[in-house]
Amino acid sequence: MAAASGSGSAGSGPRTARNILFIMCDQLRWDYLGHAGHPYLDTPTIDALAARGVAFERAFVQAPVCGGSRMCFYTGRYGTTHGSHYNNFPLRVDEWMLGDYLRPLGVRTVLSGKTHFQPDIDTIKRLGIDPESEMGRHLRQGGFEIHEWDDGLHPDPSLNREQPYLVYLRELGYDSENPWHDFANSAEGPDGEVLSGWHMRYARLPARVKEEHSETPYMTNKCMELIDELGETPWCIHLSYIKPHWPYVAPAPYHALYDNAQVLPPNRTDAERDDPHPVMAAFMKHGESACFAEDECRETVIPTYMGLIRQIDDHLGRLMTFLEERGRLDDTMIVFTSDHGDYLGDHWLGEKDLFHEEIVRVPMIIVDPSADADATRGTRSSALVESIDLIPTFIDRLGGDIPTHRLEGRSLMPWLRGEQPDAWRDTVFCDGDFSVRTARWELELEPVEARGFMARTERYKYVEFIKHPPQLFDLENDPHELHDLGRDPAYAAVRADMHERLFRWFRGRRLRTTRSEAFLDKATGGAPRRGIHFGVW
Amino acid sequence: MAAASGSGSAGSGPRTARNILFIMCDQLRWDYLGHAGHPYLDTPTIDALAARGVAFERAFVQAPVCGGSRMCFYTGRYGTTHGSHYNNFPLRVDEWMLGDYLRPLGVRTVLSGKTHFQPDIDTIKRLGIDPESEMGRHLRQGGFEIHEWDDGLHPDPSLNREQPYLVYLRELGYDSENPWHDFANSAEGPDGEVLSGWHMRYARLPARVKEEHSETPYMTNKCMELIDELGETPWCIHLSYIKPHWPYVAPAPYHALYDNAQVLPPNRTDAERDDPHPVMAAFMKHGESACFAEDECRETVIPTYMGLIRQIDDHLGRLMTFLEERGRLDDTMIVFTSDHGDYLGDHWLGEKDLFHEEIVRVPMIIVDPSADADATRGTRSSALVESIDLIPTFIDRLGGDIPTHRLEGRSLMPWLRGEQPDAWRDTVFCDGDFSVRTARWELELEPVEARGFMARTERYKYVEFIKHPPQLFDLENDPHELHDLGRDPAYAAVRADMHERLFRWFRGRRLRTTRSEAFLDKATGGAPRRGIHFGVW
Repeated sequence: MAAASGSGSAGSGPRTARNILFIMCDQLRWDYLGHAGHPYLDTPTIDALAARGVAFERAFVQAPVCGGSRMCFYTGRYGTTHGSHYNNFPLRVDEWMLGDYLRPLGVRTVLSGKTHFQPDIDTIKRLGIDPESEMGRHLRQGGFEIHEWDDGLHPDPSLNREQPYLVYLRELGYDSENPWHDFANSAEGPDGEVLSGWHMRYARLPARVKEEHSETPYMTNKCMELIDELGETPWCIHLSYIKPHWPYVAPAPYHALYDNAQVLPPNRTDAERDDPHPVMAAFMKHGESACFAEDECRETVIPTYMGLIRQIDDHLGRLMTFLEERGRLDDTMIVFTSDHGDYLGDHWLGEKDLFHEEIVRVPMIIVDPSADADATRGTRSSALVESIDLIPTFIDRLGGDIPTHRLEGRSLMPWLRGEQPDAWRDTVFCDGDFSVRTARWELELEPVEARGFMARTERYKYVEFIKHPPQLFDLENDPHELHDLGRDPAYAAVRADMHERLFRWFRGRRLRTTRSEAFLDKATGGAPRRGIHFGVW
Repeated sequence: MAAASGSGSAGSGPRTARNILFIMCDQLRWDYLGHAGHPYLDTPTIDALAARGVAFERAFVQAPVCGGSRMCFYTGRYGTTHGSHYNNFPLRVDEWMLGDYLRPLGVRTVLSGKTHFQPDIDTIKRLGIDPESEMGRHLRQGGFEIHEWDDGLHPDPSLNREQPYLVYLRELGYDSENPWHDFANSAEGPDGEVLSGWHMRYARLPARVKEEHSETPYMTNKCMELIDELGETPWCIHLSYIKPHWPYVAPAPYHALYDNAQVLPPNRTDAERDDPHPVMAAFMKHGESACFAEDECRETVIPTYMGLIRQIDDHLGRLMTFLEERGRLDDTMIVFTSDHGDYLGDHWLGEKDLFHEEIVRVPMIIVDPSADADATRGTRSSALVESIDLIPTFIDRLGGDIPTHRLEGRSLMPWLRGEQPDAWRDTVFCDGDFSVRTARWELELEPVEARGFMARTERYKYVEFIKHPPQLFDLENDPHELHDLGRDPAYAAVRADMHERLFRWFRGRRLRTTRSEAFLDKATGGAPRRGIHFGVW
C-alpha cells in the first residue's frame, strides 16, 4: 500500500461508521477519473474521496455486464455460483441479498437508483408467495427497501407509466409520453426536431432537458431526501446512477466541457484487428464495435462520456456538502464504485461483455470515517479486490459475523485498518455469458456454450472459452493487453497454471448454502448423539 | 449392448408405459444380485426383471451416501449443483423435484418409503410460506405426495410417535415405546432379553418380529394398497425400501438362509492397509471399518445382509404377481436401483462415503413394457449411466420436453429402444462430502475441505481430494481397485486427463436455472425489439 496525497482525518466528533453510502456508477471505466490518471478529466469530488479513504486500484467486477455484475455486488457471490450471469436472468429466490445481511444488524438498506435486479417471478408464484405481500415485495425488490428504483432505460413508457422520473419531467412541463427519451436523452435539431440519443452521432449536442432536471441531479436529490427521511436510523443507501451509461447524451454545459483534443487515442493495434481471437472477431462485428472503430464516433461520444462523469462528480460534491452539514460524514462509510467499464473503441470493441481491463476493472474507493481507519487515509492499495468483497466488508464494519458458506468475498476491513490480511487472494475471477449477443450466432454456439471465464493475477490475465482457444496477456510486459499469448507455445506452462486456478475456483463455489460451517463443525461425529449407532460390534 | 438370456415380451394387451414404479433399495451393492454374478445369492424376481428389460451394468450414483445420492435421483442434478451433498443438508426450495416434472404430464408422484429428503425449513419460513399450506407440504415432502414416508431409522420414538410403522407394530401387540427398535431391529437373548440390532454381533439372530410384520413386507403392502387406491390415474410410485441398510437384522427365515461358507472373501490386500492413501487411512480408523476388518464381523453380518436382499426379492415377487393380476405389467415402467453400496470390509472399510465400485456402482434395471422397447428385452448395457438419467428418462417416456438448463442427466430411452444415442457420455461423476465424519478431524480439514470428487471412464477411476493426493485406478488391469496409481509418476498423463474431465464437469454445472435454453435462443439479439438501441450511429 503506497502512500498518496491525503487530506488527514474525517473531521471532529465521534467517528464510527454506522451508515453506509454505497455509490455506484454504470459503465464507468476505472481510468476515467482524475486521481486514476486521466490527463484531461477532472473529478475533484471523487479524488477527494480517495484522499480521505483508500483507493483500491486493482478492483474487479465479477461479470462484464450490468445485471451479472450487480447480482455479484448484491449477493456477495460469483455469477457462476448464483447463476444470474447476465442482464435479466432472474436471481434465485433463496439467494440472500445485501439487505438480508444488514437487516439483522439493525440497518435499513434502501435503494435510490438502478439495480437491474430481475426477480424470479415464476418461482415466486410457483411457491405460492403473493407478489404483493411484504415478502413478495422484498423478493421482487432484490432485498432493498425502495426509495426510488430506476433502472435507467425507458424505451417504452407504456411499461412504466408511473416511473417517477417520467412523471417528474412531465410535471415540469416536458410535454411527452416519454420525456425520458424525448428530453433527457435526446438532443434537438435546428428546426426543433427531436434527435434521439439512441443515435451516437448526436452525442455532442446538449440534451433537451435542463441540467438540474437531468438524471444525475435528480437521483442525487432523491438520495438527499432519503437521508433526511431516515434520520438517525442506521442505513445503507445504495445511490446508483445510470450514467455515464448510454444513451450518451449530456445536458448543457456538460455536453461541451471536453473536446476532441481531450479524447485519448484508442488502445488498439492493427494486429488485433487483422488476426483476432475468434471471439473478439465475432464481437468486432457488432454494431457498437463497428461504430467505435471510427474516429468520428470516438470523438463524438467520448467527450460526452467525460462530461457525464464530470456531472456525477459535481453532484457528488453537492452530496458531500449535504452530508457534512448533517454531520453524516463522521458516521458514514462511503463507497464509490462502478458495475463495469466501456470499451469506447479500445481493442476495436464497443460496449462490454468481454474481459479487458477497460471492462472488468473498476474504481473502488472506500472512505471509512472510523478512527481505526485513520492509518490508511489517502493511500492507494494494489491488493486484488473483488466486488463481492463489499458485503463482507459492510458486515465486518458493522460488527456482524460473515457466513462463509454463502458469501464468497472477504472483508476489506484489514486493508482499511492498515493490516495485512492472512493469505489474501492472488487471483481475481470474472465470468461472462454472451448467449443473447449475436456474436453467439457468428460463433455457432449453443446458449450454454456462450461463456467466458477470466482468472487474473498480478501478472497475467487468462480467459477461457468453451469452444475456442483461451486468451492470455502478460500484464507486466503488455499492460494494455495488446498481445494475446493464448496460442503461443512458449506460454503453455503459464496457461496451465491459470487453468488450474480456474479449476480450483470452480471447485470452490459455495453451493452448500443450507448448512453453515459452524453447524457442520458441531455435527461432526454426531450420529451417536442422535441415537444412531453404526459400526458397533 | 450384449444380448443375455431374455424371456420375450411383457404380455398381451396394449403395451405402453404410462405408470412408473421406481423401486429403490438402500445400501444394496451392484454385485449382490444373482444376475450380476453373485455365486450364492439367488434373486429370481430381480433377475426376471432384468430378463424382461435392460440391465445397465455400469450405473453409478452421484454421491456415495444416502441423502446426497437421493437428492441427485430426485432432482436429476449433481450434488455439486444442488448443494445437498450429504445426509440432512436441506435442499434449496427452488430445486425442481421428480414430482414437479411429472405433474404437468398428468402423473401423480407418490411415495411409499424412504427419501431422506430434508426440507429447507429455515428458508420456507423466511419466505413466509406456511409449512402447513399445500405448497408448504409440497416443499416439506420433497415434491412427493405421501402415501407413506418412512426414512427407516427411528432411534428416538418421541420424535415420530405417529410413524405408521411403529403404530402398526404396537397395534399388532409388539408392546414397546419403540417396537421398530425393540422388535423389528433387535434379536432376543436366551432369557428373552432384547439384543439391540445396533450391535452387529447379533446379526445372525432372527429379528424379534414375525417376517410378515417386518419392514420389507410392510412397505410392499403399502405400495400395493397405493396402487389400488390410484386406480386408473397415471402414477409414478417411489417404492423405497430401507433394507438391506443397517441395522443388519433379518426376521426368520431370512436370518439363516445363508451361512459363513457363502460369504465371499473380502476384496482387499495387505498393501492397501499397510500403505494407505491418507483419506482411506482416516476412514479405516472409523468404528465400522475396524469392525469389518475382522472376519468374525463379516461372517456375522454378510449372511444377514444377503438374507435381507433375498427377502426384498421375495416381496418384489409378490408385487409382480399383484401387478400382473391388475394388468399393470403392460402399462408400467419398472425401475429397480439402489442409492449406493456397502463396503462390508472391502478395502478395509465399512459403510460408505468413498468412491470404490462397492459404493458408487448400483443395480439399474429398467423394464419398459412399451412395444418400442421390445428390441432390448433381456439385454445388458455397458453404457455409462448415472442416477440423474432417470428423471429425463421418465419425462421422455411420458412424452414431455426435457429442460436441459436444469436437468443434468440424459434420457435412457434410446438405449431402451436399441438405438445408439448421439455422443453418449464417456465419464461418470460422483462427489462426496465427509465434513460430518470424524475422518475430517483425523485429516485436520475444515468442513469445506472435506470433499472428494470422482471421475470414472470405462478404463480409469480418478478421485480428487482438496488437501490430499488423488487416487487413480486402472479398471482394465485392476478391476478390483487394489492398486492406487494416484501418486505413480508413470500415470501423470492419465491423471491430467481425468483432472481435465473434472474441470469440464465443474464448469458445466447447470446453475442458470431461471432462463431456459429456448428462452435465450429466442432472446438473442433482441434488444432492438425492446426499443433498446446501442451501437447505432
